Parts: sequence; structure tokens; C-alpha cells
Amino acid sequence: MMHTAPPVTVLGLGLMGGALAGAFLRAGHPTTVWNRTSAKADDLVARGATLAESPAAAIAAAPLVVVCVSDYDAVMNVLEGPLDDRVVVNLTSGTPSRARELAEEVVRRGGGYLDGGVMAVPEAVGTADAVLAYSGPRSLYDAQKSALGSLGTGLHLGDDPGLSATHEMATLVLMWSMLDGFLNGAAILGSAGVSATAYLPVARTAIDMVAGWLPGYARQADDGVYPADDGTVNTHLTAMRQVVEESEVLGVNSELPRLVMALAERAATAGHGGSGYVALVEQFRKR
Amino acid sequence: MMHTAPPVTVLGLGLMGGALAGAFLRAGHPTTVWNRTSAKADDLVARGATLAESPAAAIAAAPLVVVCVSDYDAVMNVLEGPLDDRVVVNLTSGTPSRARELAEEVVRRGGGYLDGGVMAVPEAVGTADAVLAYSGPRSLYDAQKSALGSLGTGLHLGDDPGLSATHEMATLVLMWSMLDGFLNGAAILGSAGVSATAYLPVARTAIDMVAGWLPGYARQADDGVYPADDGTVNTHLTAMRQVVEESEVLGVNSELPRLVMALAERAATAGHGGSGYVALVEQFRKR
Ligand SMILES: NC(=O)c1ccc[n+]([C@@H]2O[C@H](COP(=O)([O-])OP(=O)(O)OC[C@H]3O[C@@H](n4cnc5c(N)ncnc54)[C@H](OP(=O)(O)O)[C@@H]3O)[C@@H](O)[C@H]2O)c1
Ligand SMILES: NC(=O)c1ccc[n+]([C@@H]2O[C@H](COP(=O)([O-])OP(=O)(O)OC[C@H]3O[C@@H](n4cnc5c(N)ncnc54)[C@H](OP(=O)(O)O)[C@@H]3O)[C@@H](O)[C@H]2O)c1
Repeated sequence: MMHTAPPVTVLGLGLMGGALAGAFLRAGHPTTVWNRTSAKADDLVARGATLAESPAAAIAAAPLVVVCVSDYDAVMNVLEGPLDDRVVVNLTSGTPSRARELAEEVVRRGGGYLDGGVMAVPEAVGTADAVLAYSGPRSLYDAQKSALGSLGTGLHLGDDPGLSATHEMATLVLMWSMLDGFLNGAAILGSAGVSATAYLPVARTAIDMVAGWLPGYARQADDGVYPADDGTVNTHLTAMRQVVEESEVLGVNSELPRLVMALAERAATAGHGGSGYVALVEQFRKR
Repeated sequence: MMHTAPPVTVLGLGLMGGALAGAFLRAGHPTTVWNRTSAKADDLVARGATLAESPAAAIAAAPLVVVCVSDYDAVMNVLEGPLDDRVVVNLTSGTPSRARELAEEVVRRGGGYLDGGVMAVPEAVGTADAVLAYSGPRSLYDAQKSALGSLGTGLHLGDDPGLSATHEMATLVLMWSMLDGFLNGAAILGSAGVSATAYLPVARTAIDMVAGWLPGYARQADDGVYPADDGTVNTHLTAMRQVVEESEVLGVNSELPRLVMALAERAATAGHGGSGYVALVEQFRKR
């Protein structure tokens, strides 16, 4: 069975935009591109892309317009001219409020709007490992699903165009915390002469353990019920105090374990010393 | 081929000690147990364990003695009598210095010492999913490897008995950071009406991405070279500032993203604004 891949336009050919255009080309889409610095299109043109002479010309060339530039001010610069019958898919990172404002403007100008976030490094774009999370009208997503599938695995988060940016915020906090936890652990072990590479198998085991707990923990967070089957906040606090003290003995930074401990102490003070770890979610919900 | 499982002793039958003794029984080891509160042995005795009348009697009953109690003071209480020709495997959590002190004492009293940490919830003990990380003389570990294999997947970290506790500290910081990052993300999404359960697929994708980067990042941390192929510290800082500001708009706790940002800002001030994320390891190495 043959399907004809529909034409697409990509505005912005930085690290990520270039990878998006490349994935469309590989999947056989007639691909029109534009970039402020036009030299960045050379490679893509050599691989079959059409270089438009202006953003407006690029937008006119295909009904699906993917935008991926540095920030929302740059998005406003490139989204020029009429947007009638265009679906704009904006994969530029930003805030939920900016995404909602832009959605309104695109609709006012006759187009449809989907916001999205790319959960992948550029090299992974175009493979199933790249996850792209979209938000905006479900009907619009369904209509573009097959074309967007050329970029990676798609997830639709909901109709509110701000949802993708909210998920991106949540995800970034998780990723930075995990990275900082790993680097802090590497520093602790480094003080004992253990390399970060030697730390990997144990770190990986820890990550897999926590990842395995999350479905149950998410349910507890949603239900507001925090059973202590696998250890109480007070038990964690004892270990946290020990880690803070030992970090000082070893001469490594103790700020991250200190914050972790302060949050657990507040949960205990709030009456959750005998509850499970997820009780801490209430501390994060507070300003 | 039939192997006869050697006799073992387990001191301490709390949540974890009870699970360890149960795993030895399931694997066919003649198992002697002792617990301060003897009623906790009833179940294990019904399954074939022998209840000793004192810690000393339990220690005399088998050459391999596994100890798992609340803390090191409790370990000192239960390790009574002579330890000649015993191998003591202490799975009680503690600090590297306490582990080294105890190792010296056990050797002074005629025994061999391995320290260890259980990376598993009690229910997983006895399956390959339970990882147990040991430190102490490699020859001792090799001699006990097969018996200890009844508890789960074993890792030997090195000859210094303090290494297991150091790894446990590092691992706890990673696990708490990851859990807090997830709960913080759930709080951010909760403010937009998204449940923690709905957050799971995206959180899982983020965790898998970061886990996939760690082997390369560990090498960078070891080499002290931080290429910026997948984004600079400055790019992360821009996003961090946005997340801190938006957290305040949404009315959720911003302490964790603020600490993440402060560490990145210090890395940038130290000249690593154009480096990759792993440059932050140097901030964690400082007191
Ligand atoms: N790289 C990643 O791993 C990754 C991963 C997930 C998400 N993202 C997101 O993807 C977006 C783009 O990132 P990137 O890595 O591709 O960045 P990049 O390599 O720095 O590219 C930035 C792009 O924006 C364009 N641009 C900037 N200001 C402009 C303006 N005023 N008018 C028109 N075009 C302008 C640049 O054009 P010139 O070429 O002319 O400068 C370039 O095409 C960001 O929101 C980023 O957060 C990136
Ligand atoms: N549970 C887990 O998921 C888990 C996971 C990894 C590591 N660990 C570690 O495993 C160790 C034990 O944890 P656990 O969960 O089994 O704790 P637990 O259920 O509270 O059991 C504590 C044990 O220590 C004994 N004990 C306490 N003080 C004593 C004393 N002065 N003299 C003699 N015995 C004493 C208790 O005896 P009684 O029964 O008489 O009170 C009980 O057998 C801890 O170091 C913990 O960090 C646990």
C-alpha cells in the first residue's frame, strides 16, 4: 500500500528545526523550509527541500506549518502573512500563557494551532524514540497525526494549547532534579575515589527502582492517601540527616540533601511523619 | 546438578531481615534466625527456620551471619560472643566510617566482614530484581557469592568496607531528588488540573531520556570535559528562570527549581555558561 506524504513547511532550521525538516524529508514529504540565516538550509536543499524566499512564501507552500525557533518573540517574527487554512504546529519552548495567546492569534488570523514539545535530542528526531507531546484541539491533532508521526512518537495531552508548555515545565524540573541528584551522587563517590562511571550500575538500579514506584506513587498523590508500606517520612528523615552530616564530613556540597530534608521535615511537622514519602507532594503544592 | 545450600544465620527480623531470612529458606538454606522480639520469628519457623535462643547461639550455628537491624547501635547489641571463622555480612544502613570501624572490630574478634546495602523493597528480596551491593575483601565476597545470590543480584563495589555506605548515600540523594522532581512536576501539572497519573507517560519518557544520557555524562564528569552538543548551561538557565517565574504564577513551590538555577548560575559564573550540563558536577564537589 502506498501513501503519499503530504507537503509540509518548516520555519526555523536551528539544531532542532533542521532535524525536524530532515525527518520530514526522510519520510518522503515535499518539504519547504525557511531560516533567517539561509545558509542553514543548504544541506536540506541538497536532500530535496525547497527553500522559500520569505516566511510568508513558506507558509503559503503547505497546509502544515511547523515552527521551531529560539523563543516566542522569534515565533512572532516568522509567522507573517495570512494563515488561512494553515495548521501551525509550534514546537518552540515557552510558557503556557504565551502558548494560549499565540493560539488565539493564529485562530484570529484564520489558522489552526497546536502547541508541542520535543522530548528528544535532535539526533533522535524521526525515530520512535523521539516523543513529541502536543496540545490543542483534538480534531486538529487527529487530522495531522499521520504527518506528525514522521517526527517521532506523538502524544496528545489535551485541548488546552497551554498544556504542552505546562508538561514541559514539569518534565524539566524532573530532569534537572535527576541530573543534579546524579551529579551530587558522583561528587559524593568522587570524594571516596570512585569514578562516576563506576557509579553507573548502582545509579541505574536506583533509577529503575524509583521509576517502578511512580505509577503507585502517582495514584497516592491523586488520592491524597499516603500509606507507609515501604518506609515512613520519619525513616527517610533519619537517613537524610545522616547524608547531610556525612556530606559535610566528606567536604561535598550539601544543599540538595538539605532542601530534600527541609521538605521532609515540613511534611513531618504537618503531621505526615508516619506517612509514606508521597505526602511531600503537599509541600510542593504550596507557594 | 544438585548443590547443597550452606547453612546461614540471620540476625534481625524486621521488614527487611524477615525478607532476607525468607529468601534463604526459599533457596533451601538451613536457616537459623534470632530477633529481639522473638514473635517475629514465628512465621519463619513455621517455614522451616530454626529459632536460636540468643544472638551468640545464632552466630555459632552457621559460618555466614547476615545482620539487618535498625542502626549500628543495634548491630553492636546483636553481634555478641566470639566471631571466629564467621563471615559477618551487615546489611544495616549506616555511614562509611561506622562500617570501617565495625569491619576492624569484627576482624579483631576473629571474623571476616562484608558491608552491604539492599537496593530493593522487602517484597523483591530473593528475586533477580533485588540488587545488593557489597563492599569488603573481594576474596570473602567470592567465597560467599553463591549463598548471597539467594538474596538477589549481587554487586561487589570494592575492598574498602565503607564503599557500600558511600554508594548508599549517593544513591539516596539520587532517589530523593528524582522523587522530589516527580512530586514537584505533579504539583505544577496539578495546578493546571492534570492528575499525577496523567503525567506518568511524559515523566517516564523524561526519565528514560536522562537515564540514556548518564553513561556519556559520567564519562564527561570523570574526564572534566563538558561538551555542549545537546545544549549549554546558559540555554538551561533561560529555561530555569522561566520555570521559576511560572511556578510563582501558578502558585506552586519554587524552591527546587530555584536551587537548580542557583547551581547552574554558579557554574556559568565559574566560566561554564557555554559548557554542557555536566559542568555542574564541579559545584557539587564544593562544600
Ligand atoms: N536542541 C534541543 O536538543 C532541543 C530539545 C527540545 C526542545 N528544543 C527547543 O527547540 C527550540 C529551538 O531550539 P534549537 O536547539 O533548534 O535552537 P538553535 O539551534 O539556537 O536555533 C534557533 C533558531 O531560531 C532562529 N531564530 C532566532 N531568533 C530569530 C528571529 N528573531 N527571527 C527568526 N528566526 C530566529 C534561528 O535562526 P538563525 O539560524 O538565523 O540564527 C534558528 O533557526 C527551542 O525552543 C528549544 O527549547 C530544543
Ligand atoms: N525496609 C526497606 O525497604 C529497606 C530497604 C533497604 C534497606 N533497609 C535497611 O534495612 C535495615 C532494617 O530495616 P527494616 O525495614 O527491616 O527495619 P524494621 O522493620 O524497623 O526492623 C528493625 C529491626 O531492628 C531490630 N532492632 C532494633 N533495635 C534493636 C536493638 N537495640 N537490639 C536488637 N535488635 C534491634 C528490630 O527488632 P524488634 O523486632 O525487636 O524491634 C527489628 O528486627 C535498616 O538499616 C534499613 O535502612 C530497609
